[in-house]
Amino acid sequence: MSDAPAPSQAPTAAETDPNTLGWMQGFPPSQDKLITFHDGSFRNFPELRWAWSNVRQLVPTVNVWRGAGGTSTLPRAERDIGASTSTTMDGRPMTFARMFDETYADGIAVLHKGKLIHERYAGALKPHKPHIAMSVTKSFTGTLAGILVAEGKIDPQAPVTDYVPELKDSAFGDADVHEVMDMTTGLLYTEVYTDKNSDVWGLRRANGMAPIPPDYEGATDIFSFLCTQKKQGEHGKAFAYKTVNTDVLAWIIRRASGMTLSDLLSERIWAPMGAEEDAHYHVDRIGTESGGGGLSTTLRDLARFGEVMRNHGRFNGRQIVPAAVVEDIERGADPAKFKPAGYTTLPGGSYRNQWWVTHNEHGAYMARGVYGQGLYIDPKAEMVIARYASHPVAGNAANDPVTLPAYMALAKELMIRG
Amino acid sequence: MSDAPAPSQAPTAAETDPNTLGWMQGFPPSQDKLITFHDGSFRNFPELRWAWSNVRQLVPTVNVWRGAGGTSTLPRAERDIGASTSTTMDGRPMTFARMFDETYADGIAVLHKGKLIHERYAGALKPHKPHIAMSVTKSFTGTLAGILVAEGKIDPQAPVTDYVPELKDSAFGDADVHEVMDMTTGLLYTEVYTDKNSDVWGLRRANGMAPIPPDYEGATDIFSFLCTQKKQGEHGKAFAYKTVNTDVLAWIIRRASGMTLSDLLSERIWAPMGAEEDAHYHVDRIGTESGGGGLSTTLRDLARFGEVMRNHGRFNGRQIVPAAVVEDIERGADPAKFKPAGYTTLPGGSYRNQWWVTHNEHGAYMARGVYGQGLYIDPKAEMVIARYASHPVAGNAANDPVTLPAYMALAKELMIRG
Repeated sequence: MSDAPAPSQAPTAAETDPNTLGWMQGFPPSQDKLITFHDGSFRNFPELRWAWSNVRQLVPTVNVWRGAGGTSTLPRAERDIGASTSTTMDGRPMTFARMFDETYADGIAVLHKGKLIHERYAGALKPHKPHIAMSVTKSFTGTLAGILVAEGKIDPQAPVTDYVPELKDSAFGDADVHEVMDMTTGLLYTEVYTDKNSDVWGLRRANGMAPIPPDYEGATDIFSFLCTQKKQGEHGKAFAYKTVNTDVLAWIIRRASGMTLSDLLSERIWAPMGAEEDAHYHVDRIGTESGGGGLSTTLRDLARFGEVMRNHGRFNGRQIVPAAVVEDIERGADPAKFKPAGYTTLPGGSYRNQWWVTHNEHGAYMARGVYGQGLYIDPKAEMVIARYASHPVAGNAANDPVTLPAYMALAKELMIRG
Repeated sequence: MSDAPAPSQAPTAAETDPNTLGWMQGFPPSQDKLITFHDGSFRNFPELRWAWSNVRQLVPTVNVWRGAGGTSTLPRAERDIGASTSTTMDGRPMTFARMFDETYADGIAVLHKGKLIHERYAGALKPHKPHIAMSVTKSFTGTLAGILVAEGKIDPQAPVTDYVPELKDSAFGDADVHEVMDMTTGLLYTEVYTDKNSDVWGLRRANGMAPIPPDYEGATDIFSFLCTQKKQGEHGKAFAYKTVNTDVLAWIIRRASGMTLSDLLSERIWAPMGAEEDAHYHVDRIGTESGGGGLSTTLRDLARFGEVMRNHGRFNGRQIVPAAVVEDIERGADPAKFKPAGYTTLPGGSYRNQWWVTHNEHGAYMARGVYGQGLYIDPKAEMVIARYASHPVAGNAANDPVTLPAYMALAKELMIRG
């Protein structure tokens, strides 16, 4: 899933720091330092190191309001974890600090027992600036769906067409809601980031994250794109990671709640958890949020959401997500349905309601997004790691061998040191 | 300057309420309720009644951060001013409440002696949502320029090319900074909103607020557009309202401060005044803010800025704008240079550093933007009125005859009643 040189050949994080390189600096920036949406340069490496912290400047967006209730406190208990040691999946000795640099992190926040013990930023990211979460967005969508299921507004066993009858003639015409929640639908759609002919590019054009050529005949909004999806194979048999499932789930959520995804996220999660800054989704040409990958948040607010989950939905003095919704995610889905997908860095894992469940010794589960975005929740170690990044390689298989062992090593250290 | 039916023939505010009409409601909205950037429908009336409260959903933007210092309090002392009576310039009896409806206001906030005595919203606007300020933006740009002049970073007597040498061969090649501040340059550029061939459309394509046709050969960014401006007549002789002056002034500000307009506004005004919400500018294809008309703010934050000005720059416990900058604006410019422009609703007025000065009996001055945006500061009555609107007619001559007498009548009432 690499669409850039492997890390070993790519220039380092320090060499591609967008500030040092002067991307988009100057009034106006010089021609060779320009990053624009229209020429597609925002997707190139190292330009994306600037772009993923500045999505709003490239495309239309809609706010997820933080509400008027004030910011929740993230108590600080900083400690130096930079020297925490681990061994990468390919056997190299590693430190937490070196992991940060080697995997092109733009920011990492670590919470232990609810306290912010480590927070570091690099490149174009700042504490108050939102960074695109990419597919970490999906876990927000899944959690919102879970809330509505708990309230009886969505029936996971019902057909998708109970909520979105317009999908009748699409691949989703005979799918049930739980199959899109767990991504076990059988779809012709492909999501290969390195292949310019992959369907994911059609989705990007539809959802506003790729320019639309003047003579383009494909779908130019998300809903139209979903309606054209074709079935391949059977539903319910195996996990296959395809973003259109999440966009369908987002549509079910809108129909079931009568609200936009942005307003629902604001009302149910962003305001109650006392987010520090507004978040935002990028939107398509008719104002629809990309529920599959369009959310941008600050690093700290992502960490707050991690705490919401780690505490079984209780945070900032209130029950934000029903405990049963979190516990269902923690339990995960059937690893047998996950195995055929061949995620070698996630052996024994499963995918449940838009979350990646490790089934490891700590019961850790994750939200994951391309280019290294992640939210890692380790219930046993009472640890949450929020991470934004701008890795040269889209697929997380490129950073997992370094990041995942570093997270587990840190978790074990914290459990020992308390 | 009308590009829509006169108010008497246009449907009323109630008839064009975007919520009642169902604009952009539904998932997805039905075809006849869609408002998009690409088809230009966002500029039509009544679609603009939705669009001016949702600019961010249509075009790329950049945040003006409110800072981490917290929101300043706007103490409340609500009173019923809806029945305040006035007589319109064409002799009709009017009330404040009817003025609100008749001039398609989306929101009006009135401060008296620093207290919020009246706040009302309609249509698509909500207290926490930013609304486009249109050319009210210019007064922020002028005030920032004034701050930098006071700090010795901009010399108003210097040639524009001292700061932006690239403008050497343009109309601004022999203009001085104070001439762009007061809009007394001689330019071929025309700004006639009703004329689709007027240069203002070229500016809109350049600044990102109009779609760019595939074969378009004009400038596609603000800076390139400014460099192509041609001179007509002489500089310094008369006031002529042309937005390109403000965009040039914004460029001088960037060069003199070394900061983007958004970061400068955040650092110098938005954060110190304790804004409640982030503001935002829409940006062109290379990320440049429209300093001439691209700012969106909440109504309350616009009112806060009015208080900053009314208090000669002191607000939220600190001196935000040097008093001399405000006093210079209050004094205004030479009405003789303003008179030839023929603003019949503003007799005896002048234009000073991007502010409209009435020279009326209360020494009131204003920030003004098309479709009815306004910030009215009445120093003698200690009154500030912030107003956002979505009037069918762009030019303020369409609402001035109703709004300005209503403001003066309310001011006099407040002075009597205390």
